Amino acid sequence: VRGYAGSSAGVAIVDTGKGNIQGVVRFVQVAPSSCIIDGTIDGLEPSAEYKLTVNECGDISQGCESVGGVYQPLQDGEGRPYGDLGVFKTGNEGRATFKKEDNVLNLPEIIGRSLVVNSGEKRLVCGIIARSSGLFQNPKTICAC
Amino acid sequence: VRGYAGSSAGVAIVDTGKGNIQGVVRFVQVAPSSCIIDGTIDGLEPSAEYKLTVNECGDISQGCESVGGVYQPLQDGEGRPYGDLGVFKTGNEGRATFKKEDNVLNLPEIIGRSLVVNSGEKRLVCGIIARSSGLFQNPKTICAC
Ligand SMILES: [Zn+2]
Ligand SMILES: [Zn+2]
Repeated sequence: VRGYAGSSAGVAIVDTGKGNIQGVVRFVQVAPSSCIIDGTIDGLEPSAEYKLTVNECGDISQGCESVGGVYQPLQDGEGRPYGDLGVFKTGNEGRATFKKEDNVLNLPEIIGRSLVVNSGEKRLVCGIIARSSGLFQNPKTICAC
Repeated sequence: VRGYAGSSAGVAIVDTGKGNIQGVVRFVQVAPSSCIIDGTIDGLEPSAEYKLTVNECGDISQGCESVGGVYQPLQDGEGRPYGDLGVFKTGNEGRATFKKEDNVLNLPEIIGRSLVVNSGEKRLVCGIIARSSGLFQNPKTICAC
């Protein structure tokens, strides 16, 4: 974890779970209080709403049931739950694409945890948030993470 | 990443790759210079030798080819490559079980990267190193990671 020397990037392949739901979500921390979240998820119901959360652990040994609850550092008692990334909507074909800026997330803090797609209280699909090569990496380094 | 307040634990499910090779490897950082690595891997050749490495990224979007090289922080010019965890041997049935102490690894530094099982120069199977609930976690916290 190298702080903000350059930007850091992460990726979650969300394909652990039931059915044909799968997607890729990328994270780029462009400034200390700005994390860009960019994703495409397929196989969902058309014109429906889902909630995206960062959950505590990345242990998918029992699928999405072993990743713990929505991540909330103990010291943060105010504001939204840290790991609550809000809702997104699908189009006619059951695909969702979204790109948003999050001012709460700090990428190094969520690396190794999991990203979960929820329908109401049900966890549909999840994936580990991994380090990826930075989009804006220093050309002299192989990998920005 | 909470340093050494209690121990931290990680898990890699190595099942991305060709064939029927799969396994689970757990990491517990029990002291600043002691990380216990405990794993079982199945589906390998009987009585053969494999190399275990931590690779730079955890981006498995192109399987084990997109995880970068063996992890080696730029500032560390001496000693073994940081991510080189050495070799392990399988038994008659193509299963390997190992438990060892590593005095170089620092778990927070490898979370979100990948664990790769190599045969010679070939990457056979890999998985993201994720945060898991701590084995020795404080009973007041849900998760030690
Ligand atoms: Zn990387
Ligand atoms: Zn945990």
